[in-house]
Amino acid sequence: MISERTRNSLWKKGVTICLGLIVIIGFTSVSGAAPLSIEKQGSFAVGGTVVEATEPYDPRHPTPQSQTLHGDHANVNYQIPVDAKKPPLVFLHGAGQSMRTWQSTPDGRDGYQNIFLGKGYPVYLVDQPRRGDAGRSTVKGEIPATPDEQFWFGQFRLGIWPDFYADTQFAQGEENLDQFFRQMTPNTGPFDAGLVADSLKALFGRIGDGVLVTHSQGCGPGWLAGMGSGNIKAIAAYEPGSGFVFPEGEVPEPIDNASPFSPLKASSVPKQEFMELTRKPIVIFYGDNIPSDRVAEPHKDYWRSAREMAGKFVDAVNRHGGDACIINLPDRGLTGNTHFPFSDRNNEAVAEIFEQWLKQKGLD
Amino acid sequence: MISERTRNSLWKKGVTICLGLIVIIGFTSVSGAAPLSIEKQGSFAVGGTVVEATEPYDPRHPTPQSQTLHGDHANVNYQIPVDAKKPPLVFLHGAGQSMRTWQSTPDGRDGYQNIFLGKGYPVYLVDQPRRGDAGRSTVKGEIPATPDEQFWFGQFRLGIWPDFYADTQFAQGEENLDQFFRQMTPNTGPFDAGLVADSLKALFGRIGDGVLVTHSQGCGPGWLAGMGSGNIKAIAAYEPGSGFVFPEGEVPEPIDNASPFSPLKASSVPKQEFMELTRKPIVIFYGDNIPSDRVAEPHKDYWRSAREMAGKFVDAVNRHGGDACIINLPDRGLTGNTHFPFSDRNNEAVAEIFEQWLKQKGLD
Repeated sequence: MISERTRNSLWKKGVTICLGLIVIIGFTSVSGAAPLSIEKQGSFAVGGTVVEATEPYDPRHPTPQSQTLHGDHANVNYQIPVDAKKPPLVFLHGAGQSMRTWQSTPDGRDGYQNIFLGKGYPVYLVDQPRRGDAGRSTVKGEIPATPDEQFWFGQFRLGIWPDFYADTQFAQGEENLDQFFRQMTPNTGPFDAGLVADSLKALFGRIGDGVLVTHSQGCGPGWLAGMGSGNIKAIAAYEPGSGFVFPEGEVPEPIDNASPFSPLKASSVPKQEFMELTRKPIVIFYGDNIPSDRVAEPHKDYWRSAREMAGKFVDAVNRHGGDACIINLPDRGLTGNTHFPFSDRNNEAVAEIFEQWLKQKGLD
Repeated sequence: MISERTRNSLWKKGVTICLGLIVIIGFTSVSGAAPLSIEKQGSFAVGGTVVEATEPYDPRHPTPQSQTLHGDHANVNYQIPVDAKKPPLVFLHGAGQSMRTWQSTPDGRDGYQNIFLGKGYPVYLVDQPRRGDAGRSTVKGEIPATPDEQFWFGQFRLGIWPDFYADTQFAQGEENLDQFFRQMTPNTGPFDAGLVADSLKALFGRIGDGVLVTHSQGCGPGWLAGMGSGNIKAIAAYEPGSGFVFPEGEVPEPIDNASPFSPLKASSVPKQEFMELTRKPIVIFYGDNIPSDRVAEPHKDYWRSAREMAGKFVDAVNRHGGDACIINLPDRGLTGNTHFPFSDRNNEAVAEIFEQWLKQKGLD
């Protein structure tokens, strides 16, 4: 185990690197109400595998052995604005979510989909393999339908049920919370980060160069995809929890925390693959109500440990020559953000910070 | 059992009524390539239920009994074109499908979503409760991941595996078939026509008057919704299989057919509710390769029986004062259409026939 002092030091180092990179931003108002001019929009499946038949098919006696199953693909909805001159943004949701994450907010405002279309970016929304409209899995699944929303209310840092954090940016109200809970949709087969990454690599192979934007559980597959696709020119990760990767021999000790998900572990990947992450700018965003030091409250302490691991990750990328940073939204004057900053009440300001970073990296 | 002669007679009556209503249409070319001007687009959940907690929630010891689950809602993606003056079209998919049904075709052309946006209609795409991005079910589910695509190839009337029908409008080719199979997505809980209908009624209650467009298995919930919502001003049903409703005492005998789904049954509903279906125009579309008389081939014979039941349904609606008809696409000069006419190669011509009907009914 590394010491608390070392952890804090590594964590602060990541933040410091980041502070050096980002200038203060004047937030411009984005109405989101102007009509969108869409040059092209559509949907397609990408990636995936096929369960092949092992026997000849007889239409009079169809058997599973004589038939195929195409599954484990991602489903993609895309929109390309008229005169788009910016790189496409590919959005991957987190655990228990789908592309709904990026669409309308729980209180019915524009989400990142519309906000970034309005800014002129082509937008690709992904339902990852075995989720949402990409529900066709090659492996069987069970969906227990277990009531668990009060837990997620806490884990997603809206507050501690039934109380919202006093400064929350979540649009409170029964109807908004109802919509928020109904964004959830289950795995239709086992979660497989490698499959998700493969579908992302196939997607970028199809559309060419662009920026990958991930959330929470989706950030893990995002790092894997980033290591395997030269078309992924940058990665923006919102609130990664687990799933961080490190070069062989450099994996930090698991980080204990007060949550059921303790300890928070990181994974080892071949250094040669990890080095690909040093060849593209990376930004990691975290919202508010994440303490710097260990606390007893399980949810907050989970995110304390996640952000701590993120600091180590950023440090690993940068010490190998990369360009990674963490942006803590409270450090940019945005307080009260939940685990879903891109759909919180201040999501246009949150989007501005992201776009400013894109501009700094020449990705606009 | 009613006689074969009576069945044919009822069936022909439905067709005859229809023939009298529809004029020959000159197909105008719709490029689908012009940019779309979208006034507003977004997503929301509608309908659904809540599993309530029966015990107080303790954040330190979360249990299923102390938590809630919001499920059984539909998920809706909508787009409203600039200067839309036409009624919204609400699209509900069929079995094993999602809103993907109405988006890009398997060969990457515009589906009904873009075609009808281009014609100026507001478009609402639905993932029904327990399907796709609306996968959160209040009842547990199992997904067997059983290979079954060669069966669906036949049931969806692409042909008899591995051969396409000679005249098929399906865009052949391995990649297109791959995309087609990947449109499928499983139930995440038991299929429940009443739940689906409830979500549609709630949707129309939210958006106001409009036209419901259903496909296949979705047509059954569509009739139920149509009986319970005065906002549903018309119903267009593509290729209904089972799920037909009749007034109490008027339910036809089940129709034997050569498929595993034999016999094809209809349901009884209170006459007062059925009468609501006589107060809105109804059109039912069928594609090609459906025989008029009984055949040995299971898939074709299933659709023979389904269309036969559709004829009885149309007849029941009309004898109670309604305005229902069947349009067989081959009678309009469109041959080779599969179970998915709206995404076949000639889908713009198929759409034209639908729009012409809307115009005739004053719904444009």
